[in-house]
Amino acid sequence: MTITITAFERSPDGGAGLARDTRVRWALEEVGQSYEVRLVSFEAMKQPAHLALHPFGQIPTYEEDDLALFETGSIVFHIAERHEGLLPDDANARARAVTWMFAALNTVEPTILELATARLLESDKPWHQERLPLVQDRVRTRLSQLSARLGNADWLDGAFSAGDLMMASVLLRLASSGILNEFPNLAAYVARGEARPAYKRAFAAQLAINAGKTPAG
Amino acid sequence: MTITITAFERSPDGGAGLARDTRVRWALEEVGQSYEVRLVSFEAMKQPAHLALHPFGQIPTYEEDDLALFETGSIVFHIAERHEGLLPDDANARARAVTWMFAALNTVEPTILELATARLLESDKPWHQERLPLVQDRVRTRLSQLSARLGNADWLDGAFSAGDLMMASVLLRLASSGILNEFPNLAAYVARGEARPAYKRAFAAQLAINAGKTPAG
Repeated sequence: MTITITAFERSPDGGAGLARDTRVRWALEEVGQSYEVRLVSFEAMKQPAHLALHPFGQIPTYEEDDLALFETGSIVFHIAERHEGLLPDDANARARAVTWMFAALNTVEPTILELATARLLESDKPWHQERLPLVQDRVRTRLSQLSARLGNADWLDGAFSAGDLMMASVLLRLASSGILNEFPNLAAYVARGEARPAYKRAFAAQLAINAGKTPAG
Repeated sequence: MTITITAFERSPDGGAGLARDTRVRWALEEVGQSYEVRLVSFEAMKQPAHLALHPFGQIPTYEEDDLALFETGSIVFHIAERHEGLLPDDANARARAVTWMFAALNTVEPTILELATARLLESDKPWHQERLPLVQDRVRTRLSQLSARLGNADWLDGAFSAGDLMMASVLLRLASSGILNEFPNLAAYVARGEARPAYKRAFAAQLAINAGKTPAG
């Protein structure tokens, strides 16, 4: 079985690990599955060949024999379902781990995406400075709820799972904002994720592609 | 097996079907599974008893014997995994259907949530009128890509699946905006979803709770 994922030829973050291929790399490293990477330029991402793999013209995609997937949540779930190490064996615990994957992607990440959008696409607008605190407070509301649930635990529900991989990946997007550090248990949670050998290998692999290249965009 | 879900005691949309319990009801109706509903007030949603079920203080939740789940994507997936009717048998087709669930929730819905947020929380701000077209255009970008992929097909990947249930539910949030009608094949896609007997039963069930009540908020 050969697994091929796609990644940015030149990541917009210059290798800071925030491009979504890092999430897939991390999952593959956790389960000890080797993979190949095909780099895609911004021009190629909008061409029919890539759109056939990813209708929204993004990375990563995932190809394995005659299966082609897009959408990070789906790819990580597929990896977690087929290999040991990212989902518990007990059916109920497994369903709860999947719940945290969806919570990361549909409840926590949208507020973080909105903050990123404000910074990337609206920083030149006359309303930006006045609006930014509203957007930041929406992020804080979610982090406050997540922080209360996590408490003093290492991970969200028992052992590390694909749910933690996804939640930590989503929270990593906040690293440069300072907001994460307002919630020490969440900052420590993310640091625990980053300290995992599998994360370190994933991070190093994406950095190796982007090192020495000027960030795009 | 008794299934109990939670729903708003008084839905903010007055029964228009946009509260997320409708998605879970629809899934349960598609697979022919009966369920009970516990209504929750806005006050109760923020109390410890409900937060133990749903750390973000929202509805719906899902209880089945000793399993408790939150997050609509996870609940619908759990139902789809354990009953016939919402996921194909073929493993690859199944992975692709799950991909569309994640795409609905993490790629399409965030732009729609941002539009809803602008309308609900920022309509009194001085920037609202000038900013709204930017937010609408982000929705259009996603719909345009989705429309191109759907083409003339009835559903996103072969037969109706949990992926279509989730995508149609997400797009339904745009009904009042007029944007959906700019993409006739997507409007028809959503209408096909609404025409399904299971959707009609789900819609009627949530309307019965909210009929005659003044919309909250």
